[in-house]
Amino acid sequence: MVERGRVALEAVWWESGEGAPAVGYIDQRAIPREVRREFARDAGGVVEAIATLAVRGAPAIGVFGAYGVALVRALHGAPSGNERVRQEAMRIRAARPTAVNLAWAVDRMLRADGALAEAIAIHEEQRAVDRAIGAHGAELLPAEGAVLTHCNTGGLATAGFGTALGVIIAAHDAGKRLHVLVDETRPLLQGARLTTFELAAAGVPATLIVDGAAAAAMRDKKIAAVIVGADRIARNGDTANKIGTYGVAIAAAYHGIPFYVAAPRSTIDFALRDGSGIIIEERAADEVRKFGGVATAPEDVPVYNPAFDVTPARLVAGIITEYGVARPPYEVSLPALETRPALAVLERAAP
Amino acid sequence: MVERGRVALEAVWWESGEGAPAVGYIDQRAIPREVRREFARDAGGVVEAIATLAVRGAPAIGVFGAYGVALVRALHGAPSGNERVRQEAMRIRAARPTAVNLAWAVDRMLRADGALAEAIAIHEEQRAVDRAIGAHGAELLPAEGAVLTHCNTGGLATAGFGTALGVIIAAHDAGKRLHVLVDETRPLLQGARLTTFELAAAGVPATLIVDGAAAAAMRDKKIAAVIVGADRIARNGDTANKIGTYGVAIAAAYHGIPFYVAAPRSTIDFALRDGSGIIIEERAADEVRKFGGVATAPEDVPVYNPAFDVTPARLVAGIITEYGVARPPYEVSLPALETRPALAVLERAAP
Repeated sequence: MVERGRVALEAVWWESGEGAPAVGYIDQRAIPREVRREFARDAGGVVEAIATLAVRGAPAIGVFGAYGVALVRALHGAPSGNERVRQEAMRIRAARPTAVNLAWAVDRMLRADGALAEAIAIHEEQRAVDRAIGAHGAELLPAEGAVLTHCNTGGLATAGFGTALGVIIAAHDAGKRLHVLVDETRPLLQGARLTTFELAAAGVPATLIVDGAAAAAMRDKKIAAVIVGADRIARNGDTANKIGTYGVAIAAAYHGIPFYVAAPRSTIDFALRDGSGIIIEERAADEVRKFGGVATAPEDVPVYNPAFDVTPARLVAGIITEYGVARPPYEVSLPALETRPALAVLERAAP
Repeated sequence: MVERGRVALEAVWWESGEGAPAVGYIDQRAIPREVRREFARDAGGVVEAIATLAVRGAPAIGVFGAYGVALVRALHGAPSGNERVRQEAMRIRAARPTAVNLAWAVDRMLRADGALAEAIAIHEEQRAVDRAIGAHGAELLPAEGAVLTHCNTGGLATAGFGTALGVIIAAHDAGKRLHVLVDETRPLLQGARLTTFELAAAGVPATLIVDGAAAAAMRDKKIAAVIVGADRIARNGDTANKIGTYGVAIAAAYHGIPFYVAAPRSTIDFALRDGSGIIIEERAADEVRKFGGVATAPEDVPVYNPAFDVTPARLVAGIITEYGVARPPYEVSLPALETRPALAVLERAAP
């Protein structure tokens, strides 16, 4: 949710009102050209919005998937144990393979009694988690200087306040004078289209670069820190994130620049020993061969188009979650988070 | 010049015939959609073709610039010492600042007596140089395996047989079983548009990737070598090449993959002690903000768009010129090339 500056955008929401229930979402493919609001009216609509990246960002598709399961239950008037509900929930769960938050949210919905109440709780918790990530991460950034980010990890990506971008915006709001170098993030240009849009809305100075310029920018623009999000983190700290992240992490290490990952605990796959077990989604060749209907390459050229890559834990200076900044060795610091009470519970327990 | 397989393309040529003299060229911006042949009819046309990247590639703009000076002399019927000729030659020389070959070729044309004969000699020498680079470089590549390249360094880029791509094609023609991973090379997509096109014409198996996927491909596709061209090489081996090259070189070093530069001696700026003296051209923001007329970012977002970056010599395993493979320390191996006789002379002197 972008609340600062010019726009206020809710990435996904529950649509009740007078008509049939639906899950509302902003079609992120249309940004920055327009802010187009759409509705998923059944499980197929939820799956399609996720698969086509109309709704994207690991935490946001988790929240969206949760509302999707609530929608399925509302449509069938059935409990989560109902076989049809379970089948459609599993379709939603499988809409994208790499982000762990979606599977986590659907599984939680299937254990819950009150479907819509649980989805709203997941959404509210995401906002609380994002606020905490922003506060913890902001302390890591310099009082003044340039930072670099890859892909989009703002409110659009989390249905809250953002992870890595939330950290940057929180630091800016706290008075730090940051300038953000934004990788455009080919092939789907989430950095160019969404991150620059959200930073402008938040009033944070930003400069767009092609992905290939990141290494030169680190040297020439004196980047003080790199901060990115994550789609899945293994218990040893190996991190799957948008394709291009691994090269950015290597270049940051080469320049002695700290490379941070910001993600909610729900992104950590505690069952996964290391990054070698992370399934990397390969997407369609035409994402690379075409842009906006314009051919960028011979139409029959073979393409390797992995949506994500895995950054080894040794390149990661810190992993910012709602509980604070986990530091190496991650084999120790990450598993320690598994049994911590959920943040919302923590807040309710506070005096 | 692509002579193998499906097409035979001459990047630039002298157009005499019945009409007024002109310099012919393929408008490389239209590839792969079409092979469009155009003509520069005066110095302004030569400058425009270079500045708009209709003709690009450091060696090719050197040859094109040489024909351009011949054209200026033909139009004015004046010797190279003529003030008008000199002024227009200097406009051509300044059409792009980073590639040293253009300045080198124009200077050589201004010292020559027979203008067209000298331009044709420069073009012929480029072909001989490219053949020699291909032969020397092919020996460095494995008998079988994957190699990665960035930008376009084929016949279109040199007006001959190519530098880095010429090495790959020469190795393929010599029976090595190579598979080429091609960085698309944002913002202008020379890899996607031109390199895949030339590799298909040469019958070399190739796979296109986004620039951000290079590091993942190095790990996942078992890249055996990286080979790129150069726009300017300092006497210590620091190498300016298309933006993105520096990051590729860092990632190659991280994976223990040899990173080679292939370029004619005319690319070496012997007057330049190291890469800190290389002028990096910054190009228009809309190259990044738009593609094919489609907005890829908010229209007012600031952009940092350097056309080149500088790879430090310590990341370069070898520099392939027409004289062989120069190895570190480049402070010794490169200056030794300065006084070697030109290759065409060498060949004429051979028994």
